[in-house]
Order: sequence, then structure tokens, then C-alpha cells
Amino acid sequence: MPQNTSHNRRQLLASRPHGAPTTENFRLETTALPKASDGQLLLRTVYLSLDPYMRGRMSDAPSYSAPVELGEVMTGGAVSKVVESQHADFKPGDWVVASTGWQDYSAVDARNVQKLQGEALKHPSLGLGVLGMPGFTAFMGLLDIGQPKAGETVVVAAATGPVGSLVGQIAKIKGCKVIGIAGGPDKCRYAVEHFGFDRCLDHHNGLLAEQLKHACPDGIDVYFENVGGAVFDAVLPLLNTKARIPVCGLISRYNATSLPQGEDRLPLLAATLLRKRIRMQGFIISLDYAHRYSEFAQQMGEWFAADKIKFREDIVDGLENAPQAFIGLLEGKNFGKLVVRVGNDQD
Amino acid sequence: MPQNTSHNRRQLLASRPHGAPTTENFRLETTALPKASDGQLLLRTVYLSLDPYMRGRMSDAPSYSAPVELGEVMTGGAVSKVVESQHADFKPGDWVVASTGWQDYSAVDARNVQKLQGEALKHPSLGLGVLGMPGFTAFMGLLDIGQPKAGETVVVAAATGPVGSLVGQIAKIKGCKVIGIAGGPDKCRYAVEHFGFDRCLDHHNGLLAEQLKHACPDGIDVYFENVGGAVFDAVLPLLNTKARIPVCGLISRYNATSLPQGEDRLPLLAATLLRKRIRMQGFIISLDYAHRYSEFAQQMGEWFAADKIKFREDIVDGLENAPQAFIGLLEGKNFGKLVVRVGNDQD
Repeated sequence: MPQNTSHNRRQLLASRPHGAPTTENFRLETTALPKASDGQLLLRTVYLSLDPYMRGRMSDAPSYSAPVELGEVMTGGAVSKVVESQHADFKPGDWVVASTGWQDYSAVDARNVQKLQGEALKHPSLGLGVLGMPGFTAFMGLLDIGQPKAGETVVVAAATGPVGSLVGQIAKIKGCKVIGIAGGPDKCRYAVEHFGFDRCLDHHNGLLAEQLKHACPDGIDVYFENVGGAVFDAVLPLLNTKARIPVCGLISRYNATSLPQGEDRLPLLAATLLRKRIRMQGFIISLDYAHRYSEFAQQMGEWFAADKIKFREDIVDGLENAPQAFIGLLEGKNFGKLVVRVGNDQD
Repeated sequence: MPQNTSHNRRQLLASRPHGAPTTENFRLETTALPKASDGQLLLRTVYLSLDPYMRGRMSDAPSYSAPVELGEVMTGGAVSKVVESQHADFKPGDWVVASTGWQDYSAVDARNVQKLQGEALKHPSLGLGVLGMPGFTAFMGLLDIGQPKAGETVVVAAATGPVGSLVGQIAKIKGCKVIGIAGGPDKCRYAVEHFGFDRCLDHHNGLLAEQLKHACPDGIDVYFENVGGAVFDAVLPLLNTKARIPVCGLISRYNATSLPQGEDRLPLLAATLLRKRIRMQGFIISLDYAHRYSEFAQQMGEWFAADKIKFREDIVDGLENAPQAFIGLLEGKNFGKLVVRVGNDQD
């Protein structure tokens, strides 16, 4: 059953995953349409964003944000159209972005909703990608924490994803040498040819540490951390004195159920930070930088209008396919920003 | 043979330690007095500073600073008296501080020598402690990276050492709650009664993790890292969102020859930095903050003159005893800033 005007389909968290999520952890349910009360909007989801952080919300381990409760709608940002407005600032047909979850319809307070503006109106799904949260993450993490300087070497993984691809492009705008890491030769070629990375290394070929060393003869000044795991292991010995490591994600570990066995390298990391006088800093874009959104919107709008920013989307049709697409995201199967087209985007 | 006016005694690095240094790694040698050439000063060492970083200089592993070569004089900061001056700005009898090493006499370029000033002239050995490099380390690491705010909880180990004791006192001046960690009940009592820590926990009693949790009911906002090891392990789960971790030393690991076996907690540290949006940053005071020395000198001078800063020194007599004292420093045997009185401080 596709999206229709009489019912609301919702993807619920049916059970908590142990390790990698499976489709059994989700349940598609059909209910009545919600109603917008005073000050609220009834929204119809057009594009649903799928992002790695959602894996954390499926678990009840302590985190910066409360987990999704069992039987509740999966959380997530979406681009929607206003169906009905009980607020003077919005009218039916407006394109908006809000955290409305994995469902067809939602009734939300207008104050929690942003209208799409500028370039995003020409291509609404980008409000979930380079012109939205992932773009904001790349922009602030790289510029505010990473502080790249012309001539420095910047390394970022998931190089064709929405964050990694933008980190690379902004670093190029700033005059840096940019080395990407991605899974497979197609993605690597794309990162160089389409996004303008100087090089992109395939972490599937088992030679990452050696190839990264070769690709970074002057060491690494900024490592934008969004994956962790083997990529970080390859980066660690190459970090330069005074390197900066913004940490926005660790996708390689999100399905992990235990720590690796072997040497405890926590002291090695601490000693590296000390000896090389490195700054390593985690951030959550919505919590740390919400007050600086306008800086991002203005600069990214300018770059985008000047055709300095490329993007790639991986669009999956149908809310019913969201769980499988999300499972694939955690395995690196997407190629570009993963978006679910939940409903008609033409009317 | 004590210090005399006709010979120079020097402690050389005889061999590189594997693990903890022993007295065999040092060799005391007697040579002729060096001569000061044009622009130089002949200095007589009065107080030699012993500091944990010197352990790193004994090894030839890659570090931020070149190692001491075998057969060379051990490096180190010292407070000296000018014996002979070939530079207009200095005259015999002046008190100075310079990196002159473990020896009685040195001939050094005047531009690498600082005159003791202000409060330090009343108590010259403090130019190696609270009014010198350790004080500067505590001041900049805590204030610039740690950024403590009134009401926050600050934790620091080696609480009766020159860095830890000053971190605690500055944090108290800034209105923080300060929990110290030290080895043994005498040091812990002293940290509270003399330095004004709110509490000080004994890491010898095997209950540190539990006691620290109890002592920090609101979590930890700033952990000033100077020891690593079991203290960091106890701190890690208690760190608050947006905590700051300046890293100036990791003394507990300086004699380590391998990483601990077991779980690899590097990913745990990275995940903690991400989830709690923590900033962890290594620094080397002489390399990162030399340009801000005057800020420290002025503020510390004010606090010191107003009797807001307490200190404790652990003075060992005789250059011949420096190796054993240094070995004890790495084992936590000193109680206060460890200084070797190399020569007469009265004439």
C-alpha cells in the first residue's frame, strides 16, 4: 500500500537489535491520520532521511539522546509538504523540514518546523543532505573544530556520503590536499572525479594503512572522524603535530556488541594526543551548533548557487523499504545521501 | 665531592632504560669548567629541577623533543647564579633560570637565559615550581584548554605535585569543586589541609573508581590529565557532557614497555568523546604557550603576592643523588616539587 490520503503508515521499533539490525526489529503499522490542533501543522512526508545516528536510537544504552521506545515510531528528519495549517506562518503546499519520523503523516507544533528556503526549494530532498543536517555537520565540524589551513592534508572517510563528500569539497575550497576513503572502486573514482578529492582509497582492499601512508607523505593535519575502526587505526600513526580530529560519528562500531580483544590501545591514543599535541573533540551538530545555523545556511547557499558544491543522492522508494535501506546504510551499501521517497514529490 | 669552583660534575646518560630507569643508566663525570665566550654566561647550578618529562628524553622513541644522546649530559631546567658574564644585561651574582642540565656549571648564550624576577627572587627554587614551568603548565592547561566555570567539578591527580597542586588551587580560585588524587593518606590530607582541595582520594587503596564516583556526584567537568592509567580509567565513566581534558602528562605509563592486554578500549574512548561531546587535547607548555608566558607571570605573581598560592618542595641535596631522586619521582616517592640542591644557595 503506497502513501494515501486516508491512512497513516508508520515504521515502529518492534524490538531492539543485538548487533546489526534486521527487518524483524521494525514493524509497519497503519493507523488513522493524526489531527493538527491549534498552532500545529499536518504534514505529509515526502522524503525521509536515513542517517547512521539512528542506530543509536534503537538501543537503550546511555547516549546523548533518549532511545526510541519499543512500539514507537522511529525518529528521523524528513522533508514534508504542509497539508493543513493551524498556524499563520504556514499554508498548505509549503515545503518544510522537521523531525517527524518514519511515517506518512505527522501533526507537529509549527515552532518545531523549518520552511525550506533558497536553493533547497529547487531540490527539496537536499534539505536532508548538503543543505541540511549532514551539510551543517560537515561545515561546522571541519571549519570550527578542524580549522583547516591552505596546504594542509585533510582525510575523511565515507567520502561519497553526504558528510564526507562535503568535508572534502569544503577542504578543497580552503586550499587543502584532500584524501578520501570509501568502500569500493566505483565510490573512490566518483570521489575524485565528481567531488574533486585529490585521491580516494578503497578500504575494501586490505591495504588501507599502507596506501594512506603513501597518499599522505606530509602526514595528516585534519582527520574528520565519521567511521572509526580500521580507518582510524590507519590514520593514527600518520597524524601530525597539532593535528585536529573532529569526531561526528563512528559508524564502523555502531553494530558492535563488544570491544575488540588484544592490546588496550587507549593509552596509545592518549600518548599520541600528548606527544603530538592533538585536539580530538566530539560534537553533535544539533546540540553544539544550533545557534550558528545561519552561518552555514548563508555560506553554503552561496557556494551552492555558485555551483561549487556537488552532491549525490541514493533515493529508495517507499516507506516499506526504509528498514532494509537503513540496514544497508550501516553496511556501506548506499552510494550517496540515502533518502527514502515516502510519497509523491510532484503535487 | 660536593660542588666546587675548579671542576664541573655532570650526570650523563650512560645507557637507555628498558622500563623503569636504574642508577646504572646514569654516570657521574668530572670535567674542567666550561668557558663563557662572547655573549655567553658562565652559570653555577644551585637548584636542578627533576620532572617526569625527562623520562621521555632518556628513550630514543619518537617524541616531540630529541632524546638525550648516550654519553651526553641529562637535560633539565635549573636555577643558577651567574659566575661570569660576557653579556651586558647580566652580572655576577644574578639569579637566573635556564635549561642547563644535570651539572654544576654551564656556559650558555645569554639569550637562552631568563632572570628570576619578582616573588621568585625571594625564593629562587620556586622558579622551577609554581613560578616556573610546572606552574605555567597548570595555569595554561587548566585555564586555556580546561576552561573551568564556577560550580563545575575539576579532578586532578598528583595532587601534591607542582602541577596538580596548582591546578587545584587555581580551580578553587575559579569557584570549582576540586577533587584531588594522590598516593597515600599523608599526601591526601595535605592536599585538603594545605592546598584547599575539597577532597583528595588515595589511589593506593584499590578503591579509587568507587570513591571517585562517590566524590563526584555531579560528574566531572574538567579532568586535568597528568598521570593516565588507573586514574584515567576511574575518570572515564564519570565525565560529563562537554567535559574538557587537557593532557599534559601520562606519568603512570612512562616506564611501560608494552600496552596492557585485554579489551582494546581505544574505540570506547572515541565513543565517549563523541557521545559526550568532549574535548581532549594534548599540550607541551614550552611549545604551545611560550608566547603567553607574560599572562602567567603577571597573574601568578599577583596571586602569589596575595598569599593565595601555597606550595611544597621536596629538596634533595647533591647532584650525585639526582638519579635516585628521579627514579623515585617516577614511582611517586616525592612529596611536593622535587628539586635537587646542587650547590650552595646562600652565597
